[in-house]
This record gives sequence, structure tokens and C-alpha cells, in this order.
Amino acid sequence: KELSAAAWNVRKFGLLLALFQVAFILFFAVFVQYDWDALPVSHRRSPPEVPHVTVISQHQSLDPSATVTNLSRTLQTAQQGEARLMIDVAAEKYPLRDYFSMYGDIQVMIFLAFGLLIACFKRYGYSAMGISLVLGAFVVQWATLMHGFLDLQDGHIKLSVITLISADFSIAAVLITTCVVLGTLSPLQYLLLAFIEVIFYALNVCVCQRVLHVVDAGGSIYLHTFAAYFGLAVSLVMNRPKASVRELKNLAHGSKVSELLAMIGTLLLFIYWPSFNSVLAPADLQHRAIINTAVALVASTVGAFSVSAVVSKEKFSMTIIQNGALAGGVAIGSTADLMIQPYAALMIGFSAGAVAVIGFKYVNPLLERKLHLLDMCGVQYLHGFPGILAGLVSALVCGLASKSAYGSSFYGAFPAAVPMQGTEDFAQLHAIYPSLEPGDGRSQWTQAGFQLIAMAVSVTLAVVSGSICGLVLKCKAFDPLQLDLMIDDAEIWSLPRNMS
Amino acid sequence: KELSAAAWNVRKFGLLLALFQVAFILFFAVFVQYDWDALPVSHRRSPPEVPHVTVISQHQSLDPSATVTNLSRTLQTAQQGEARLMIDVAAEKYPLRDYFSMYGDIQVMIFLAFGLLIACFKRYGYSAMGISLVLGAFVVQWATLMHGFLDLQDGHIKLSVITLISADFSIAAVLITTCVVLGTLSPLQYLLLAFIEVIFYALNVCVCQRVLHVVDAGGSIYLHTFAAYFGLAVSLVMNRPKASVRELKNLAHGSKVSELLAMIGTLLLFIYWPSFNSVLAPADLQHRAIINTAVALVASTVGAFSVSAVVSKEKFSMTIIQNGALAGGVAIGSTADLMIQPYAALMIGFSAGAVAVIGFKYVNPLLERKLHLLDMCGVQYLHGFPGILAGLVSALVCGLASKSAYGSSFYGAFPAAVPMQGTEDFAQLHAIYPSLEPGDGRSQWTQAGFQLIAMAVSVTLAVVSGSICGLVLKCKAFDPLQLDLMIDDAEIWSLPRNMS
Amino acid sequence: KELSAAAWNVRKFGLLLALFQVAFILFFAVFVQYDWDALPVSHRRSPPEVPHVTVISQHQSLDPSATVTNLSRTLQTAQQGEARLMIDVAAEKYPLRDYFSMYGDIQVMIFLAFGLLIACFKRYGYSAMGISLVLGAFVVQWATLMHGFLDLQDGHIKLSVITLISADFSIAAVLITTCVVLGTLSPLQYLLLAFIEVIFYALNVCVCQRVLHVVDAGGSIYLHTFAAYFGLAVSLVMNRPKASVRELKNLAHGSKVSELLAMIGTLLLFIYWPSFNSVLAPADLQHRAIINTAVALVASTVGAFSVSAVVSKEKFSMTIIQNGALAGGVAIGSTADLMIQPYAALMIGFSAGAVAVIGFKYVNPLLERKLHLLDMCGVQYLHGFPGILAGLVSALVCGLASKSAYGSSFYGAFPAAVPMQGTEDFAQLHAIYPSLEPGDGRSQWTQAGFQLIAMAVSVTLAVVSGSICGLVLKCKAFDPLQLDLMIDDAEIWSLPRNMS
Repeated sequence: KELSAAAWNVRKFGLLLALFQVAFILFFAVFVQYDWDALPVSHRRSPPEVPHVTVISQHQSLDPSATVTNLSRTLQTAQQGEARLMIDVAAEKYPLRDYFSMYGDIQVMIFLAFGLLIACFKRYGYSAMGISLVLGAFVVQWATLMHGFLDLQDGHIKLSVITLISADFSIAAVLITTCVVLGTLSPLQYLLLAFIEVIFYALNVCVCQRVLHVVDAGGSIYLHTFAAYFGLAVSLVMNRPKASVRELKNLAHGSKVSELLAMIGTLLLFIYWPSFNSVLAPADLQHRAIINTAVALVASTVGAFSVSAVVSKEKFSMTIIQNGALAGGVAIGSTADLMIQPYAALMIGFSAGAVAVIGFKYVNPLLERKLHLLDMCGVQYLHGFPGILAGLVSALVCGLASKSAYGSSFYGAFPAAVPMQGTEDFAQLHAIYPSLEPGDGRSQWTQAGFQLIAMAVSVTLAVVSGSICGLVLKCKAFDPLQLDLMIDDAEIWSLPRNMS
Repeated sequence: KELSAAAWNVRKFGLLLALFQVAFILFFAVFVQYDWDALPVSHRRSPPEVPHVTVISQHQSLDPSATVTNLSRTLQTAQQGEARLMIDVAAEKYPLRDYFSMYGDIQVMIFLAFGLLIACFKRYGYSAMGISLVLGAFVVQWATLMHGFLDLQDGHIKLSVITLISADFSIAAVLITTCVVLGTLSPLQYLLLAFIEVIFYALNVCVCQRVLHVVDAGGSIYLHTFAAYFGLAVSLVMNRPKASVRELKNLAHGSKVSELLAMIGTLLLFIYWPSFNSVLAPADLQHRAIINTAVALVASTVGAFSVSAVVSKEKFSMTIIQNGALAGGVAIGSTADLMIQPYAALMIGFSAGAVAVIGFKYVNPLLERKLHLLDMCGVQYLHGFPGILAGLVSALVCGLASKSAYGSSFYGAFPAAVPMQGTEDFAQLHAIYPSLEPGDGRSQWTQAGFQLIAMAVSVTLAVVSGSICGLVLKCKAFDPLQLDLMIDDAEIWSLPRNMS
Repeated sequence: KELSAAAWNVRKFGLLLALFQVAFILFFAVFVQYDWDALPVSHRRSPPEVPHVTVISQHQSLDPSATVTNLSRTLQTAQQGEARLMIDVAAEKYPLRDYFSMYGDIQVMIFLAFGLLIACFKRYGYSAMGISLVLGAFVVQWATLMHGFLDLQDGHIKLSVITLISADFSIAAVLITTCVVLGTLSPLQYLLLAFIEVIFYALNVCVCQRVLHVVDAGGSIYLHTFAAYFGLAVSLVMNRPKASVRELKNLAHGSKVSELLAMIGTLLLFIYWPSFNSVLAPADLQHRAIINTAVALVASTVGAFSVSAVVSKEKFSMTIIQNGALAGGVAIGSTADLMIQPYAALMIGFSAGAVAVIGFKYVNPLLERKLHLLDMCGVQYLHGFPGILAGLVSALVCGLASKSAYGSSFYGAFPAAVPMQGTEDFAQLHAIYPSLEPGDGRSQWTQAGFQLIAMAVSVTLAVVSGSICGLVLKCKAFDPLQLDLMIDDAEIWSLPRNMS
């Protein structure tokens, strides 16, 4: 009987998924087009979207021109024209190349590494990898539409490798949230969770980036923190009595194989995280984002091992080491592309590793006991606390930033610091950098304030929308699982006869 | 006694392999040289092979020249000359960079992901990964020679990252075929299968690409369809009585670990398939190939899950989900770089996922019962049917294509549509695009016809040559396995004492 | 009691690790800065470090200039100036792109593939992956400092993707050495081993590259050979009685899962090795390094299978196949970027595969019996012998090299062959290639001699410093393990209740 109910639930899930797919096809047919550089050159009617990077690159192309002083003025003008032409041509021909190999890295993180990381429960490996795949496939389409509707261009949504990368960020948000309640939802509930979260996540990104102009290259504020607290709110609202929390945690143990697979996932995230934090940063900001992220991750790894070893009376735990090692990637996310210097990246990384280990070891059991808060994979300690750390650090770094320290990349790093349209300052700057967009003329401590506001907005929106989501998911219609069916692959998968 | 026969067979395999290697070294010494961009600049005597991409890029470089109208005519001429020079220099310096990161992606697909995907039988994981590695290593060399002999340049075979990519495509063909009969051949038979198939595959590629000018960026027609039906022909010719088909299928079950490893393989193929379908396409065609492939794959994943859930009365099967999720990559292969719009890519992907699931679930058992057709990994449903779907769709898309829809990339997408040498039309076009090669002046529906012809040729050649190959493999000399030795790692591998 | 001693040792390890981290942060704060291209353009006060590649690229940019003879002399001068400017600008803007995707490949090799490869013992998988991660994280920082101190620039150490790649090479050295004694050290001993080895490895690199000007693109001489014999010296000095060698080897068996994971590691190394051998080579040298490495690896794979099959009376061994398949990557390392022709790469690869298999099968048991030399993972046969083979081959290839064969890439391949400062020859060359650095005016057979000297220096320094390291590690203070605690994850990891 249990089984046939499960089969019925799976069929409902399949039907809803198919309906979504039909709707996506219709919406794609009406709204979605290839972006300009995926069109034939002759079809690029509107001037190509000048990506942020051009501000920087044109800027750079002007600097070294002083080295050709032996040329006549006419020739120099010609050359400047041509220099710009050449760069435009180059940019026009292969903008793809700037993003494609990093797109691959991020796809590995989202579709493979995350799946392996959450396949860490012996009894839930099939579901973890299967659910993360189908949610990923669903969210690519849904996030493309949601982000696109919030940023329509000529009434259309433009599809490119960059929008696919942005969709991957949305999948990251959904999978982070999923980790909080991993093993406790039915397929239908997972699907609805993804559907609802993408809406609010897209809103949050929109507010943080376009209204608040947050400095957050790796999305630690608008993505990691949001997703973690969205998930924790879902978990709290769907609250279970204390006994079941304990029972669930008992079921959620790993096997040697599952923990080694999770280690492969961890290492892939460790390796490719620099791409995640730097993919959308331009020129030297990108190089810094790579260096700072790589360096923060090695420090958080050292932090995880050393704090684990010193603080605890037990042996190393694979799961805690894995979470600690990655915490540096989150904690450096909001400041990765800034001039923080490598030693500061080491400090941020080490602190994050320490915070994650201590959170996992001491705070998690406490919250489980006191609040009956279920956090299946310790998301709060890999994404929540390090995300908040990232936000606080970013406020400090923004506040202390100076024009002399950032030089020619100042306005690239802090676009809201560009003077407002119509001011004398802007006119002067515009004369030098014709492609510069006007900003808000923010001072550095104002920017610091906005970093904190963005963090508050992210947490608040996450808690409110996560609670709503949790209430929806509790509805009988969406097949909430009985406790005895949780964390059990056999519920929806036909497993091999021989399990080992 | 069984064992010593096996040992003797292994030794024969080793000897033949060594002989092949000696022959390869001799042939390489006589025929194979570094391609032009792997030579010192001073040694590039012949003008560099102008790759197909240049047609497009020079075309693009002409378009924006209108933006420098303020320069004198002389200067403009100079600049055009220089613009071409600069592009040539740039192309000359690092053509490698355009291919190298995608080469890495494809190597992961061929050498790692494929091996993991076919390591899905609990009793045959060592052999699957070992055999796929050694066949890969063998085919890189043999395919380089075969493809090279069919395309000699100054009497030599030129080796570059591009020819290595093309060799990887040949390995894909051999491994797809191998999957049909996985576990039922001796090492010697695998080796001969690879030796024979590469010959006919190279012929098929030659006919489809150079004679028929098929539009098939990802090789769904000339590679996937060919390899699948080659393998099915081998399997039919080596036919076994009904009972043994059932028995073999019983041995071919997975374990939890083998199915999770196969899932890792699946995800790696899912992630890097856009590189496979786009690697040899130029400029905007490449960007479209990436977008369409990524989008088709998410739709086939959704298709696999939803059709599985709705159609069947059973729970999800890992193997079926894996096949269905990847079917979109095959089905989009022939049209990936065309202007089909994203929604059409979604439709193609979803259909492929559905077709694969239904084929695997209903058609496969039927064919096993009626035709005693053994298809160990369901190759017909991941490569055969989706390949045919790709061919049919490509005929439709080619027939409906218009010059207005493709604009400046029309002749890049349909090279056979370029007017014939000597015609007025060609002379006019040649004046604008000096590097344009003459074509056949095909109309769009003629191209559609050629797509279908290419499909018919691929299937026919596959069935004929596959049957021949099957007859050869049946010879006693090549150590056909007894049924009780099939799907058994222990036959050729010394396994660890503790198997878990 | 055993346990509490282990816990105490782990705590000592944690404390020391934390102290190192604090020291690293302090040293980074004082010495380490972003490299020039990670700084804002306006902050790049000193002229950018002209990387080696520029010699080649400027050289190339001069060649095709003959094609614009129709331009006036003035214009030509202007263009040359501009051509150089454009190339500089291009180089300045994205030097990162030339290295970043290969950096990712190498990170996969070092952090993931190596960990999987050495997770080949059933009882030591957690430790192998955990220890390789923490040692990697430690060495990134320590090697950055060590290499930096030996190459201070304006009193500072410059951090970039290139220095991170160079740190990855140091990790490779440490992990190769670790493999020799894998499972026999305490965490504290591993840490000290890494600390000590990095010092001597950095010295060896410095001597081989800057004093001896060794030709060794993939580091087979200064890295693989050094690391292997450093490890073997450590192992010999920490010598154990014969009985325990046998006992240890008995504990060091694999399981099916561990051997399949090791196969994944092997395949990842196989796939990305071309990046390792080519990452720092310029232009056509890089392309050759990729082709030669790829081709050598397929030949060593064929060599491993065929020699295994022919020579031995047993079935295939997963471990031996894995070692043999990779040996080609080491053996081609010193000549990968030279004009050796593909067939020679095949010969080198095949020989290496054969040597590795025979070494593993026959030499290893012999040395264990006669010298009581413990080589847990057969490092001598994957890194030692093939490294020496690489050195010998490189001497031969350097000796036979001619200016006519290398043409314009002669001085790029053999920088020490550039005439000395002040000579007439140098003045002439300098007029053509203004960025050419003076060399030693070495003849080709002199270079061959220096290849052998570099090999002798590497082996000697490895044996001496490895012996010192072994003596240090034997100290009671560093918690040498009792035999019964070796190769046992349970010693420092809390393992899942259910082990399968």
C-alpha cells in the first residue's frame, strides 16, 4: 500500500514536470532568442550589448598609447580608432571564449560536484544525485525565464553562455536550500521548492545588484546567505518534533563509499571555485578574484584540519573537514576581486574554516536540541555563517577602499561610486572614458552601508519567502513524506539486487 | 584448464597489440608530421591551411570597417591589409587556444566518462574501464593513420590538436559499438572490432562529409547512427540462442557503486557534450551549438524523468534515467549550430528523452524476445533512435532554412549551397569573400535530401560492414568466449581479495 | 591507550599546522603582493615582466610583415610599432587567459587525481585523500614563499596564476614522495616531510633551471626524478626489518572500489598530463608539448597492456596497468616541446610503459627482498625509472638538435644556446630580436652534458636531502607510528559505522 501511494506520487511529479516543460517550451518560443554574439553578424542590428568588461579594456588600451609618440598626430588618431576597432572586432568574434571554459568549470561544480557532495548519506545516494540532476535541468529553464522577465531586452530574453552561467548560479541557490532538508521531501515537494525559490532568488538578485549595487563577485551575500536562510526557514516551518530530528539524523549516516564520493565532490568544488567567484569580473579584477579565492580555500582547508584537531577530542570527521575546506570559497566571495592583498585572503579563509568546523561541531547540535532546527547537511556552517562573514568583511573592505589603492580599476570595482549623471565630475570622467555609465556618486562608507543593507535584505527576504515556501510544501496535496519513508532511496528508485 | 586457455588468449592479445604498436611507429615515422602551427614559424613553408573558421572571421572583420570612415583611403587600405595581417598573426600564434580547452573536455568524455558509463555492470567494471582505455589508446593512433591516408597533404599526415580531436570522435564510435556487445567479447575480439570499425568509420566520414556534404556538427548521423547500427549488426551476426540472451542479461546487473560511477560518467557527458557538438563549428555557429546542446540536454533530462514517471508503473531506474538524460545530446547533434531557436532545441531534447526511455523500456525487451537481438547497454535507444531523430530533424531544418534567416552565416552553415566554380554568382561572392571555396550550388531542399541520403548511407554501410566484422569475430582464431566466461572481470583481471 | 596517544598526536599536528598558518599569514603580509597583471593598470609602475613567450611572439610578428610591402616606409614603421603595441596590449589585458584553463587542468591533477590514485589501499582511502588535501593546502603557501624568496622582485614575492601553477608543481613533488612511504607516517611526519622537501625541491629547481639551464618542460628531471629518489632515501633511512616490509605490503591491498577510484585518478592524469607538460612552453613549443605528451601516453598505455600480457603468466593487475599507462607522461617530460617527431614520442612512451611494468613486476620485489626497500606505490617505476629515461633521451635529443631543424624556435627551445653578452653574434641577433636575453653560447652537445649533470644533481640532492629528512622524521618527537597502526584509516579518522 505504501508502495502504491509512492508510485502515485511519482506519477504526479512526472505529470507536473511534463506540464512545466510544455509551458517552458511555449514561453521560450515566444520570448527567448539567441543573444547577439550567437547570431550571424549581419543580424546584430542593435549595437552589441557592451559588457562591463569593455569599460576596463578600453581604458587599458588608452594607457600604453604614450609609447608611440614618434607617430604623427593624424596617424595616432587613426590608430586609436583602429585600436578600438581591433578590440571590438576581437570582442565581437570570440566573446564566447572569455566565458566558455569557465562555464564548463561551473557546470562541473553545479551538476557533478554538488551531486556528489550531497550523495553523502548511504541510504540516499541515488536520490541525491538524481534529484540534483532533475532540479538542475528544471531550473536552467525556469531561471532563464525569471531572470529574463526581470531584464527584458526589446521585449525578449537573450540566451547566451552568460545567461546559462547565471542560470547555474540559480541552481546553486536551489541545491544549497535543498541540502538543508535533504531526504525529508517528496519529489513533488523538491520540484515546488525549486519553482518557488527561483522566483524569490531572482527578486533578491535584482534588488541587491540593480537597486543596492552590492559588491559581491561570488554571490556570497545574494546567493549563499539567501539560499541558506531560505532553507533554514523552510526547515523550521515544516518543523518536526524533537524525537524525529534525532531519528532522522540517525538515518543520515554515510558509508565509506558515500563519504569518498562526497570527497570527490568537495575537491571538484575546491578546484573550480575560483572560476565561480571570478567568471563575471573583468580584467585585473578577475585575476585577483582567482588568486584570492585559491588562496582563501587553501587557508580554510588548513583551518578546518587544524581547528578540528585542536578543538575536538575526537578523530577527524570526513564531513566536517569537507565543509571546513570549502568555507573559504564562500567567505571570500564578496571581496574576491578587491585589493585586499593575499594575506587578508588567507585570514578570511582560515577564519571561515574555523567558523565552519566550530559551527558544525557545537552550534548544530545545540540548535537541533534547542530549536529542533533540522539542518541535514550543515548548510548554515558552509553557506550561512561564512556568507555572513563575507558580508561583514566586504563592508569593512569597501569602507576602507581608497582611490589611490584601486587606481584605474576603482570604478570597475565600485560602479556605484561613479559620479551621478549631470555632475561636473561625471562629465570630466566621461570625456576620458566614453563608455563609462553614470553611478550614484557613493562614498566608500556609504557603499559599506549598502553592503550591510544587502545582507539584511537577503536574510529577511530569505526568511520570509522561505517560511511561505515551507507553508506551501506542508500542504497535503504535495505528498509530504512520513518519517519512516524519509532518507530512503528505495522509496522512488528501483535499486540493484546486490547493494554493495 | 579454463584459466590457462584464458591466459593464452591474453598473451595472444598482448602480442597482436605489440605488433600493431610497432607497425604504428613505423607508419608514423614515414608519414606523420607536426601540423603547421606546431612547427617553428620559419618552417611553415606552405601558406597555413586556412581553416574553415577564417571564412567567417574575415567576413566579420570587413563589416565594422565602416566605422572608420574618417580615415583617408590610403590609410584605410593599409589598415585593411594590417587588420588581415593582425588577424593572421593572431590566428597563427595561438590557433591552439581555440581548440585546446575543448580538446580537454572531449578527452574527459571519451577516456573517463565513457569508461565510467560502461562500468555499470557489477561483474564487469574492471574490464569496462580497462578495455575502453586500451581501445582508446589503440584507436588514437590507428584513426590518425586511417583518416590521414584518406586526406594526405603533400604525401604526409599532419598531426595537431584538431586531428587528435578527430581521433577522439573515432574512439567514440568504437566505444558506442563496444557497448552493444559489452561483456561478450574476448580482448582479442575487442581489438579486432576496433581495428575493423575504424576503417569503415573513416570511409563513412569521408563519404558523408566530403562527398555528400552533410550538415552534422555533432556527428549524430555519421558517428552515432553509424556506430549504433554497426554494433547491432555485429551482435545479430554473432547471434546467440534466446536462452543465453536472457542469461546474459541476468549477469549484466549493476551494484550500487557501479550505478553511482555510471552516474558520474553520465554527468560528465552531460556537462561536456556542448564542447563535443561545437568544437569544430566557427564563430556564431559555435556559440549556437553550445547553447542548443546545453538546452536540449536539460530538456531530455526532464523528458527522461517525466516520461519514466508517467508511463511506467515501476520506480525510477538509474540506467534508464541516465540514457534518457543524454539522448538530447545525440538528437541535437545534426542541427546544433543552425538557427533553430532555443525552443526547438527544447522540443528536440524532450522528444529524444522520451524516445530513449520508451525504447529502453518497451522496444528493447521486444527485440530481445523476437529477434534475439542482444543490446547490452541499450545503445539503440541512446545513440540509434536519437541519431535517426537527429537526421530527420536536420533534413527538415535544412529544407526550411532561408538566406534571410541565416544572413552572413548562411554559407558557413551550408557550404554546399555556395554557387559552383565558374558561375556568375560565385564570382560575385568571391569578390566579397576572397577565401570562400566554391560549392555545389545546392538548394535547401536538395540539402535536405542529402541529409536523408547521408543517413541511409550511414545505416547501410554500418549494417554491411558490421555484419562482415561480426563474421570475422566469430572465427575460432579470435577466441570467442564461452557463455559462462562472459561478463566476468575475473577472466582477465586479478581481482582484490576483498571485493567490496 | 593507543587511541589517546593517537589523539594527542593529532592535536600536536593541528597545533603545528595552525602555527605554520599564522607564520604564513605574517610572511604573506610582509612579502607577497599581486603580480603586475592582477594589479590595476595604473599601478603597474615597473614595465611588465616580459615573459619568455614574448621572445617568440615578437619574433613571429616580424615574419609576416613582408606581406605588406605596398605600404610606405613611414607607415610600415608605424605599423610595426603598433603591431608591437597591439600585441603588448593584448598580452597585458588577458595574459591570464593563456594560463587559466591549464591551471584548472593541473589543479584537477594535483588535488583530485593524485588523491584518487593514492586512495588505492582499502584500509587507507580516507587518509590518502585527506592527507593529500591538507599537504596540498600547506604546500601552496610554503612553496610560494620558498620559490619567492629564491626569486625576490623588488624585495617582494609576486603572486599570480603562474606562481600558483609553480606551487602545484611543488605539491606534485611532495605527493610523489609521500607515495613511497604512504601509510607508514603519522600526520606530523607527513607535515614535516612536506616542509623539508619543499626547501630542497626549490633549491633543486633553482639550480637546474637558473644555473644549469636544463631543458625540461614537464619537470621529469628536476621534479619527478628528484621526488622519487627523495622518497626512496626517506624510506631507506627509516628502514624497517624485512618482516615488516612483507607485513606492510600485505596490509596495502586494494578493494574493488578503491581500485576503481584509483582508475578514475589515473584517467584524469592521463587526460590532463598534456597541460602539465606544456603549460609554461610558448607558442609552437606548447603545441608540440601537447601533441607529444598525448601521443606518448597512448603508446605507454599500449605498452603497459601488451608487456603485461606477454611477459607475465598472471592476469592483468589494475595497479600495474595504471602505473604503466602514465609512465609515458613522465618519460616524455624533458623532450615534450622539442622537434622529436611523433614517432619518437610513440617510442619513448612505449618504452616507458614497458619499463614501468617490468620494474613493478620484477625489480620491486627484488629490491624489497634484497635492500628491504619499501616503495608502497611503486614510485620508482612510475616516476624514477621513467624520469631517468626522460633525462637520457633529452641528452640525446639536445645533442642531435640542429639550427636547421628548429629554425625560428631554436633559441626558444634552447635559451642557453643564445650567444653570450658582448659577442658579435649576440649583437647581430639582438638587432633582429630586441627582447632576446643573452645566453651562454652553448653548443648542442654541451647542452646534452648539462642535461646529464642536471640529472646527477637532482638524484644526488634528492638522496642526500631525503636521507636527512628521513633522519629527522625518525625522531621520537614526531610520533613515528608502530607497525600495527600503519595503513589504518581508523587511527585518525572516525569512520562510518557501516563500512561498505
